[in-house]
Amino acid sequence: MIEMSHRSAPYEAVHQGAAGLIRRLLSVPDEFDIVFIQGGATMQFGMLPMNLLTDGSRGAYVDTGAWALKAIQDGSHHGDTYVVWSGQGTGYTRIPTTFEIELRGNTRYLHITSNETIGGIQYRDWPDVPVPLVADMSSDLMSRPIAWERFDVVYGGVQKNLAPAGLALVMIRRSALEHANRDLASYFRYDIHAAKGSMYNTPPVFPIYVMEKVLRWVEERGGLPAMQAAADERASLLYAAIDDSSGFYVNPVEPDSRSKMNVVFRLADERLEAPFVTTAAERGMVGLKGHRSVGGCRASLYNAMPLAGVEALRELMVDFARTAS
Amino acid sequence: MIEMSHRSAPYEAVHQGAAGLIRRLLSVPDEFDIVFIQGGATMQFGMLPMNLLTDGSRGAYVDTGAWALKAIQDGSHHGDTYVVWSGQGTGYTRIPTTFEIELRGNTRYLHITSNETIGGIQYRDWPDVPVPLVADMSSDLMSRPIAWERFDVVYGGVQKNLAPAGLALVMIRRSALEHANRDLASYFRYDIHAAKGSMYNTPPVFPIYVMEKVLRWVEERGGLPAMQAAADERASLLYAAIDDSSGFYVNPVEPDSRSKMNVVFRLADERLEAPFVTTAAERGMVGLKGHRSVGGCRASLYNAMPLAGVEALRELMVDFARTAS
Repeated sequence: MIEMSHRSAPYEAVHQGAAGLIRRLLSVPDEFDIVFIQGGATMQFGMLPMNLLTDGSRGAYVDTGAWALKAIQDGSHHGDTYVVWSGQGTGYTRIPTTFEIELRGNTRYLHITSNETIGGIQYRDWPDVPVPLVADMSSDLMSRPIAWERFDVVYGGVQKNLAPAGLALVMIRRSALEHANRDLASYFRYDIHAAKGSMYNTPPVFPIYVMEKVLRWVEERGGLPAMQAAADERASLLYAAIDDSSGFYVNPVEPDSRSKMNVVFRLADERLEAPFVTTAAERGMVGLKGHRSVGGCRASLYNAMPLAGVEALRELMVDFARTAS
Repeated sequence: MIEMSHRSAPYEAVHQGAAGLIRRLLSVPDEFDIVFIQGGATMQFGMLPMNLLTDGSRGAYVDTGAWALKAIQDGSHHGDTYVVWSGQGTGYTRIPTTFEIELRGNTRYLHITSNETIGGIQYRDWPDVPVPLVADMSSDLMSRPIAWERFDVVYGGVQKNLAPAGLALVMIRRSALEHANRDLASYFRYDIHAAKGSMYNTPPVFPIYVMEKVLRWVEERGGLPAMQAAADERASLLYAAIDDSSGFYVNPVEPDSRSKMNVVFRLADERLEAPFVTTAAERGMVGLKGHRSVGGCRASLYNAMPLAGVEALRELMVDFARTAS
């Protein structure tokens, strides 16, 4: 596949197949275009306001942590943007309620980050505001349903739940394209990617090829409802292990904002965190160290994680607490 | 590799290995940074003037055909640009001489397209102008040496000579970064990609992984001199077949501008072109139809093409001409 022309019939079938599976599995309405763009979610942080903030309209942003901040900082260079709520003062331990979001006049969209991988917080309900939502769903795409009627754009890098790195999935309400900025180089224009079926230039063939296979795997296992149920089960198991540890393990997130993709926890005695991570690695569980910016521990439970993996971690947590006590 | 963190030691080795091989094989001087950016050359058409055309400086562009035109059109949205020479009036059959390039005041760079895949024309010598060159070398990277002292930026999509699609290679003179535009989202800033070693966000792991293997293949075969000699040999063989056909096959390009990567030709009797392409396919040679925008025939002779492939084509050309005469 990687040696073939992207205009060849075999690749075309994969490309269309992937887009069709996304539409079916995520129930993307006909009013939305599905496009594949390189550069990951990071490039979308700039591309989004570039396209949508025309005619003096403003973009409102919710600051829920590290990823929201990147969207905010990058977005500020390409349009009139403002932060409508920030969790910085409270250590990014919760998602705001709709009542806390006070929009200013002429706001084009409210940008949210559906899941924060570093802080381990996630929207349970989508904010109910009088402007369209725009969401970075890089880290929980294909693990939960999307209330499409509230959104103008849903975007995300694919490398958590969908495919190898090198691709962003962008789903755009077609009516939003009508007023999109056209005074941009072609690659920065949503309308061109949409009109050309993500083939304006050579697409990243390999990530799309693998994504089509992953999407078929999702479909065979029961589609989005099955992915969501599995995510619920994995997260419940792990949060229960934390909550039942009599304070040996602590999750700092408010219960309603706990992420089902990234479970962060500290050990009450922080000196035990390094030995805990080492013991985990000895049992074949790697990557449990928290992000270097916050420390602690983190278990990332993306779609590919089997329940057995979480059960093994819970067992380790129980054993480690017993041994250390 | 595609399941690993891009911060893991095994991936880091591949990433650094690929950059190191490019530096050695292309003799990239220390004054240049080598970065990997998604979006192909197409994204560079916008990113380049975005970064370099600051403080009212202008970008001059040479119009040598389809790819130059894309750079010109996209670039015009992100800076003050002008076309300094165009081959449109003469059917894009040649590269201009240095004497034909008259730069205006305050010109920051001269943008050239080193090889035009559709028209089949290629720079033999780099223009000798009093401003830095910037070149799209997507289709002849790693097939010829680069006179680095003339350039500020050399960029190219990797999918011709280096790796699967999903990546552009950008080599930037470090001093050019000092005055680059910083009022941009992070992904659009050359200085950030350079400072972060192309790891500001998750890089496209698979194309880089394959590129590292391709670069080792290049090194094992004798490096750039061997690639260049092979390109010369392939192209000479095919142009000789055209020139020795007593006018049965015709190449419209001026001899000094003939591309060594893409040999375009017409059959004097254009009605024979479709049968020629069919006969070629019967012998296992596919992709000989010219680009849909210009018609005719085209043989693309990238680094991966063995000499035997060109010999087989020459044999076919002789046989077909004899049978048809």
